[in-house]
Amino acid sequence: MRIQSKRLRDHFEALAQYGKLGETGVCRPTLSVAEKMAFEVVSAWMMEAGMTVRLDHAGNLIGRKSGKCEGPILMMGSHLDSQPYGGRFDGTAGVLAAIEAVATMTEHGITPDVPIEVIAFCDEEGWRFNKGLFGSRAIFGQLEEGELSRTDQDGITREQALRDFGCDPEQIASCVYPAGAVGCYLELHIEQGPVLEAMGRSVGIVSGIAGPIWWTVTLRGFAGHAGSVPMNLRQDALVGAAEIILDVNRIVRQEPGTEAVGTVGNLTVFPNSRNIIPEEVQFTIDLRDIDQARRDRYEGQLRDAIHSVAQRYGLQYDIREDTNSEPRYCADWIKRLIREESKALVDDCPELMSGPFHDALAASYVCDYGMIFVRSKDGISHNPAEFSSPEDLAVGAQLLFQTAVRAAEVLATRGANSQVAPFAKST
Amino acid sequence: MRIQSKRLRDHFEALAQYGKLGETGVCRPTLSVAEKMAFEVVSAWMMEAGMTVRLDHAGNLIGRKSGKCEGPILMMGSHLDSQPYGGRFDGTAGVLAAIEAVATMTEHGITPDVPIEVIAFCDEEGWRFNKGLFGSRAIFGQLEEGELSRTDQDGITREQALRDFGCDPEQIASCVYPAGAVGCYLELHIEQGPVLEAMGRSVGIVSGIAGPIWWTVTLRGFAGHAGSVPMNLRQDALVGAAEIILDVNRIVRQEPGTEAVGTVGNLTVFPNSRNIIPEEVQFTIDLRDIDQARRDRYEGQLRDAIHSVAQRYGLQYDIREDTNSEPRYCADWIKRLIREESKALVDDCPELMSGPFHDALAASYVCDYGMIFVRSKDGISHNPAEFSSPEDLAVGAQLLFQTAVRAAEVLATRGANSQVAPFAKST
Repeated sequence: MRIQSKRLRDHFEALAQYGKLGETGVCRPTLSVAEKMAFEVVSAWMMEAGMTVRLDHAGNLIGRKSGKCEGPILMMGSHLDSQPYGGRFDGTAGVLAAIEAVATMTEHGITPDVPIEVIAFCDEEGWRFNKGLFGSRAIFGQLEEGELSRTDQDGITREQALRDFGCDPEQIASCVYPAGAVGCYLELHIEQGPVLEAMGRSVGIVSGIAGPIWWTVTLRGFAGHAGSVPMNLRQDALVGAAEIILDVNRIVRQEPGTEAVGTVGNLTVFPNSRNIIPEEVQFTIDLRDIDQARRDRYEGQLRDAIHSVAQRYGLQYDIREDTNSEPRYCADWIKRLIREESKALVDDCPELMSGPFHDALAASYVCDYGMIFVRSKDGISHNPAEFSSPEDLAVGAQLLFQTAVRAAEVLATRGANSQVAPFAKST
Repeated sequence: MRIQSKRLRDHFEALAQYGKLGETGVCRPTLSVAEKMAFEVVSAWMMEAGMTVRLDHAGNLIGRKSGKCEGPILMMGSHLDSQPYGGRFDGTAGVLAAIEAVATMTEHGITPDVPIEVIAFCDEEGWRFNKGLFGSRAIFGQLEEGELSRTDQDGITREQALRDFGCDPEQIASCVYPAGAVGCYLELHIEQGPVLEAMGRSVGIVSGIAGPIWWTVTLRGFAGHAGSVPMNLRQDALVGAAEIILDVNRIVRQEPGTEAVGTVGNLTVFPNSRNIIPEEVQFTIDLRDIDQARRDRYEGQLRDAIHSVAQRYGLQYDIREDTNSEPRYCADWIKRLIREESKALVDDCPELMSGPFHDALAASYVCDYGMIFVRSKDGISHNPAEFSSPEDLAVGAQLLFQTAVRAAEVLATRGANSQVAPFAKST
């Protein structure tokens, strides 16, 4: 049984029109009009694939195909929101491949052993309200105090944005799936890095997701006229920030060849006038590593560096931790299924870590999960030049389809023998 | 004859209400509603002081008191626009002191030997359209190609802003004063630095204005996912910018104790998302020194440093020169008048350089000029904490009044003996 690669390709092309940016880019902010339009067309494709569709109060679009038994659910998904200057494949690939997998079952008269749900999660990217994985954390009961009152750059709260999108934020607690309801979670995603391309492989099996730390750092100095305050009397917050940006770079590069990465991606200056010494600078730090102990060590060095810079330049500082996730590993039994199913499709399906995080990260705290990576051209993502070939995407969707059928069988067996789980949950 | 210090103080307090920010701050952007309201009240004060008032097509508010002869004009002024997070004295002091000087003449029945004009110049600060001294450059014939089409952060052109303010930008050429029409220019300004306070002096005589270089630097790298692009494959524009910010700081500090200052005050990141490697960073550099040769040397070092950083990090770069002024010295004869008039008012009136530039810089290219500085508390300016005492401001206004009366006499003599100028124009 084969997925329909032409249909899959058509879906990619059609979806790229919503929030289109230049020739190949996409700007589809979470809870925007562009995402709303994308949800509408994707809803139609879900229905064509034999699913019933609903929008939950956290802004997740959920398609469901009934199974032979009531549960647990086999969940697949990813997201349709993009980076502000993003590409056509990040997130989209996982949603479209999952729909294609279900459509293939329906076309071949397959009723899966357990119900299958395909979800386009709300706000995976996190840039609009500065905190991501919103929809997946919502259904897995991981939202924190105050998330609805976070604001975007125009001062719009997430609560208001959800309401404008057609959701009722007051009923958001009703979105949470009961414990045990979800049997496992599968996600296909583009790699967003250069590893598969360097190996000449179209798809890979993800071993786990590197844990990100997200900080927002604020430095406060003292404004003054750029022409008249002597250099030795200045408390310039931007000079301090520059030192810290270079510290981040130096710390993660101290052991060459590791997977550690550190980035300052967002920075704003106040009052941001060319002839005023910067009074306050706020910037983000993103620190990731697959090695938790090493990441902890780097985190400590970074805190020391920020403290030292603040003292040296007479600045006050504040570090707000927005996210702190440890590395999360994929379930051995799912990795084994993917590997077995890949044998007839590709020569070799290597195993690799994910530097970026995904909705699967939220899922990993409540159920077993597995991920399939599809090769990214030049390792580029979060950029209009992001590209994965239709051929590679078709291989990934075929592999997802076969894995889903097998995983549904496993979940049904598990449900029938809930006292004796056939596979231990990996740690 | 004494100025009325109570009236002067009342004018400062009344004017601080237009664009008031917190308890002591002012945000009065050029060509804003707040500035329009300030112009209206200042117009009334000009008329009370015996002047006729007009708004020219460059957005300058001009009050004129006739003299015994037709010319040349003795011009005094400064500006009423403020920094976005500014104080109550920068610019305002020069306009209010000049009005007070003319009001004092009128009250004492003095008709000055030549006509006196008091001008509140349009957009001295330059942050809204990223180029300052607009009004003074306009009347002295120094506008450049394309100035009217510069846009602010909301995309509004200067042309549109002038129109909304009640000016007709198409008639801007009519604002230019003919050669020889202005005999000299006097400006009182707060020091905006710590020198007078350190000397325990209320007022000072300015020797000249240090020449500013203003650059806008753009660095272009390549965006990518912050979690997956290995550090050694990155072209991070913000890391490059951080290196250059520290280079600016290092270069101007290489000879301790000089007047050289360098500042990066404005910086924007694209796409400015926490999990994307910065693709493009644009920032300003402000470099000033009283010593032209040293400033030229530092400018060369800075160009080399930017080139070297761009090469090291694989970035493209562009340096746009927005302003490049050489140091401009005050006229010896005006400095002598100020010194003579100061003797009965203060113990000592020291001479000092101006790091910031002022509308006087534009005037310096067409006529002799002189400036009086008033002590700034803690050297603070471009900040709501900016403060000059009512007592110091009254001393400054009194000195400006006396100097203006004397300077008008000199100009009348000059006009009568135009073949034999009594004082050589200083260089």
